Amino acid sequence: MLINDFEAFLASLIDDSTLIGQAMNYALMGKGKRLRPLLLLSMLEDSDINAEYGFSCASAIEFIHTYSLIHDDLPAMDNDDMRRGKPSLHKAFREDIAILTGDELLTDAFRVISGSFDYDDSTKVKMISCLSRYAGSDGMIYGQLLDVTSDSEHIDEEKLIEIQENKTSGLFKIACLFPMYIAGMDREGYFAGLGSRIGQIFQNQDDLFDLIKSEKEMGKNLSDQKNNKGTALSVYSREELEEKIAGQFEELRIYLKDAPFHTGSLTELLNKLKER
Amino acid sequence: MLINDFEAFLASLIDDSTLIGQAMNYALMGKGKRLRPLLLLSMLEDSDINAEYGFSCASAIEFIHTYSLIHDDLPAMDNDDMRRGKPSLHKAFREDIAILTGDELLTDAFRVISGSFDYDDSTKVKMISCLSRYAGSDGMIYGQLLDVTSDSEHIDEEKLIEIQENKTSGLFKIACLFPMYIAGMDREGYFAGLGSRIGQIFQNQDDLFDLIKSEKEMGKNLSDQKNNKGTALSVYSREELEEKIAGQFEELRIYLKDAPFHTGSLTELLNKLKER
Repeated sequence: MLINDFEAFLASLIDDSTLIGQAMNYALMGKGKRLRPLLLLSMLEDSDINAEYGFSCASAIEFIHTYSLIHDDLPAMDNDDMRRGKPSLHKAFREDIAILTGDELLTDAFRVISGSFDYDDSTKVKMISCLSRYAGSDGMIYGQLLDVTSDSEHIDEEKLIEIQENKTSGLFKIACLFPMYIAGMDREGYFAGLGSRIGQIFQNQDDLFDLIKSEKEMGKNLSDQKNNKGTALSVYSREELEEKIAGQFEELRIYLKDAPFHTGSLTELLNKLKER
Repeated sequence: MLINDFEAFLASLIDDSTLIGQAMNYALMGKGKRLRPLLLLSMLEDSDINAEYGFSCASAIEFIHTYSLIHDDLPAMDNDDMRRGKPSLHKAFREDIAILTGDELLTDAFRVISGSFDYDDSTKVKMISCLSRYAGSDGMIYGQLLDVTSDSEHIDEEKLIEIQENKTSGLFKIACLFPMYIAGMDREGYFAGLGSRIGQIFQNQDDLFDLIKSEKEMGKNLSDQKNNKGTALSVYSREELEEKIAGQFEELRIYLKDAPFHTGSLTELLNKLKER
């Protein structure tokens, strides 16, 4: 199965002869859903391109995602002791090792793409430009900043969407733009819009699940609520949020009618997301 | 003057409309010596190339250097309250902002290169590959790992050189390899060797100065000694270290005889380093 091949590829990138390598292994090879890589790979399949051509750049996204979780869990950030059903990295190793491991994953994301044999230089530069933009000040890190400086009592819908659009949708935009670069298409606006929509749905779902499920079931602490941070539930009631998500899935279905690729694999993945 | 133009270029890269931008400004636009950028720019001059072509990639190195100082100063790492004569970033801002600002500088280093108009795609990919390698697991971060896991009582000369070669020389190798890529030369071994030698001299000098000068004069705490970490002085006496440095400068002078560029500007810079 494709996902098993991807897992094996991801594992092959890690040199666990050092403590940081072992920490990368611990953080990366856990119970991750691999949603961003699967999104990327399914869009390649839907463009009739061998999904294995997406392994390198999908690994880079997963490296970035994992580093963001490691740094986000640190005591000075969310102070989360648990992640993906086991002690978070700074608990399992040490705080200094966790900081360095996050830095290493972020650095290695660019190494994996620049060193890949699957893309020409022009494609690599487009990918690296996109990655550094949407994982940085035009996306994830900016969203993290909004998150750590926001306070849920004064959050409104506009602010919530701005946080989601950057913190979460940043990496989803990358996951949608990478297959576009590989396929040699030039529809930046469409693919970024797709990532934006999927990211917002995913974040709304996550906020809802955090409410519904117990800490034990989710395998992580309810730190966002504990820290009084802005989640969708500081803006919507549970019923409103459920309606919101259903509406967003419907909008996404319509948006996909204009997709410049078949949407079979992607639709299958989104249906799983809907039912999770 | 060249350095003023470079400072202005560096400042122009920062958008200080956000708190992270302001923190980047605070950390980056301090009293840095800009030694790595100056090294790079002087080698371009010595290759008869307009040094301004080095501004983008030199900024990337300074971004990486600055992020490493920010993360290194954190309480879980060296726990330094002062840096470059003023409160370190997590003291002037907050610890979470310092973590995010380091992440942003690291991310932006790749954005500056990939977005530059001064290099073709092939050169950009070589630079990004080099940067991610020597600022990561084949250089700086690996050196940091050795540093935080070493203890000065059991450090020997071999271990000391391994730490210097990675932690410090990593970025100096990048600073020597970037002008080589711009000049279109293919002498990886020679230029990496040059960076390695300059980095080791610089680190030995720094360890010596830390001993000689008072905390106040240096504008930073003597945290490496305070934390009992491996510096050159846990291996050599003060007199031995002074002799070592003089010998390394002499070896460097001989190494430079084989340089595939004039060495006027570089030698001038190295003389300033010698007399600092």
